[in-house]
Amino acid sequence: MIAQEYIDLWNELEIDVPRLSKMLEGASKRHEDVFLSQKNRPLNMKYFDEFWDGFQTKRIKELNVIKKEGKPLVGTFCIFVPEEMVVGAGGACYGLCSGSPASIPEAEKELPRNICPLIKSAHGFKMLKSCGYTQSATFIYGETTCEAKKKTWEILDKHHPVHIMHIPQKKDTKSLRLWREEVMDFKTHIEEVTGNKLDASSLKAGIEVINEKRKALQRLDNLRANTNIPISGRDALFVMQISFIDEPVRFTRHLNLLCDELEARVENQINVFEKDSLRLIILGTPFAAPNWKLHEIVETSGAAIINEESCIGHRYFKDNIEVNDTMSDEEIVDKMVERYAKIDCACFTPNEARIEKIKQMVKDKQADGVIYYTLSFCHTYNVESFLVKTALQDSKIPFLAIESDYSPEDSGQIKTRVEAFIESIKFSKE
Amino acid sequence: MIAQEYIDLWNELEIDVPRLSKMLEGASKRHEDVFLSQKNRPLNMKYFDEFWDGFQTKRIKELNVIKKEGKPLVGTFCIFVPEEMVVGAGGACYGLCSGSPASIPEAEKELPRNICPLIKSAHGFKMLKSCGYTQSATFIYGETTCEAKKKTWEILDKHHPVHIMHIPQKKDTKSLRLWREEVMDFKTHIEEVTGNKLDASSLKAGIEVINEKRKALQRLDNLRANTNIPISGRDALFVMQISFIDEPVRFTRHLNLLCDELEARVENQINVFEKDSLRLIILGTPFAAPNWKLHEIVETSGAAIINEESCIGHRYFKDNIEVNDTMSDEEIVDKMVERYAKIDCACFTPNEARIEKIKQMVKDKQADGVIYYTLSFCHTYNVESFLVKTALQDSKIPFLAIESDYSPEDSGQIKTRVEAFIESIKFSKE
Repeated sequence: MIAQEYIDLWNELEIDVPRLSKMLEGASKRHEDVFLSQKNRPLNMKYFDEFWDGFQTKRIKELNVIKKEGKPLVGTFCIFVPEEMVVGAGGACYGLCSGSPASIPEAEKELPRNICPLIKSAHGFKMLKSCGYTQSATFIYGETTCEAKKKTWEILDKHHPVHIMHIPQKKDTKSLRLWREEVMDFKTHIEEVTGNKLDASSLKAGIEVINEKRKALQRLDNLRANTNIPISGRDALFVMQISFIDEPVRFTRHLNLLCDELEARVENQINVFEKDSLRLIILGTPFAAPNWKLHEIVETSGAAIINEESCIGHRYFKDNIEVNDTMSDEEIVDKMVERYAKIDCACFTPNEARIEKIKQMVKDKQADGVIYYTLSFCHTYNVESFLVKTALQDSKIPFLAIESDYSPEDSGQIKTRVEAFIESIKFSKE
Repeated sequence: MIAQEYIDLWNELEIDVPRLSKMLEGASKRHEDVFLSQKNRPLNMKYFDEFWDGFQTKRIKELNVIKKEGKPLVGTFCIFVPEEMVVGAGGACYGLCSGSPASIPEAEKELPRNICPLIKSAHGFKMLKSCGYTQSATFIYGETTCEAKKKTWEILDKHHPVHIMHIPQKKDTKSLRLWREEVMDFKTHIEEVTGNKLDASSLKAGIEVINEKRKALQRLDNLRANTNIPISGRDALFVMQISFIDEPVRFTRHLNLLCDELEARVENQINVFEKDSLRLIILGTPFAAPNWKLHEIVETSGAAIINEESCIGHRYFKDNIEVNDTMSDEEIVDKMVERYAKIDCACFTPNEARIEKIKQMVKDKQADGVIYYTLSFCHTYNVESFLVKTALQDSKIPFLAIESDYSPEDSGQIKTRVEAFIESIKFSKE
């Protein structure tokens, strides 16, 4: 039962109230099935579970308070968004609804079937007006990291304002110069929304908040790498998904509380998995909530997921921005661009640093193998998978490639392949 | 029977001789079926038919004479290549084999199945060493216009040298500056191959040759727009395909001879189609030889193709480069970039000029409708098709979208759809 104040807010945001209510029922049921059934969950997951209960109500209310103060709400699908600027300006930056198959049939009235489900899902949410985040956004941050998104902005812009940042496809000096100019354009765009200059002090304030969030996520990441794994991959993924929509200071506080608990677990040798469960890393494309399919399959097949080398995951939080009090706003922007340029998205050519990083991660985290996950029709990650596979096979690291969309139809087939993969690793270890 | 001198050359180029011989038999048979069976063909098609007979023998021999003189042979898949520079340096720029399904199974050992057939076909030709053009290339010109190609270069580069030009995804001032720098890098690369500076005079010489070729193609294009259509769409496409591999001065001379003949036909009211045949324009992605499937289907279903708004077609030749004797090399490069920036590839966002152009073309050429052709999994043209469709439907222009790869399997289904489209236009005209 949704409280009347939220129904009123939804109406104000022109949300399709019956549709969103119905979708929330499904999201709640799915959350229950995937998460609440787990044994021995950390107590501090409670905050995140409760957040999920209010993610389209309480959180949307908070965001609209910020918006009414003239601060920007920026919806995104990409970790290249300079969120530090948005936060520094007093606004909020969040991931848009894009993980559900429910909105895809509507999107396919305007988009081809054979493009990435994340894009179709998000576009459908806008067409159906069934996501509080999309409806609340001052503007949507679009970028050029993938061509299906790049071209979809032109259609989405007819439904909702989109600001497009031109992300280059190489990382040489001239490309980075273009990128820096695009970051400055974004800054100007934010300043236009608020009517205030983003000076060095506000930029630093934004960076500090997001640095702290990323540090807490790194802490979680390191705890997962212990011999005794104190939290399931599902729960860790869920926390990371919420990191994209929650208020960052509060989120960081609660994540650190969770990490305190996990540290105690590690000390007490508490493992949420059976002893000797295989340790797997997932590589590739992002998992937008409620896309929990692969994690559920893997972790109900006897293996533990200890890392996601993904934009919702390690790729997002691996690097921080180092600033100090003497820096000018221009110098701070330089540091920001330097940090974004470390993101090893498959949209870049070449992208060799990613392969070296993956090999190092497998070693550092003592993983038994990797699953390369590609959202259907994501050409960049899909083509790059051959190079990753070749490099990992040369290092004798077990590799499985899975390409999937949001439909539940291939779950059985994926489960069979994952189980066979796990068996083959176990067999070779014996 | 292939003459021994060519077999020797093929061996020198490390070509798989039995495979290429067999593929040529197929190419010859297919050419016969699609082209030679047509009634009332222009006599001057003879040159192009004969060229096809020697496209992997005589022409490869010519190219290797150039190469032995230290001049560059540049193989490409994209009309953004500054071919004027290559020709100005005494070299040759040509399209690589990429239109046949025969090499695709091999490519799929390294590339995903669900990417564009053109890329897979080309990559397979390299893996199988079964194309004289690929084997002869000093380097392959790669670019960033589509992500499947962009990522494939990283794999192709392990088989053959690739020079990548970073084409921006927008056309604003800062993007064009990057593009210009990339064109200058290409110039340097060509200069490194030849050991000679590309000065204003060699640049102009290259531009003149290619301008003349484009003018002849424009002439053909205009002749096709007459009420009496003097040449089939198939034949015109074939000529355009050859424009990417033939020696440009000779090609231009023969194309102008063909156009002389077509002009006489127009004067004498000779139409290769039945009177009142529907006039269709094909929009979208390129047709690399021997990809003649759609043209064959359409023109054996009672309609005439009068234009291809395609990279192998109108998009390639629509703009020339205006230079004069007083210009410096830097000024000439500016003019070149200005011209490339007019290319309305769907890789750019936004790309509204393309839609306006299409509407104007339909009007100018008195077309009865358009078929929007997308090579399977080409996201940019595929997503953009919705915007084109919407704009054309607003102008009451009949629109049919076809997505297809190189397999013959969907021919029957496409024929049914094309016939229904033609019927519906006829019905609405009555």
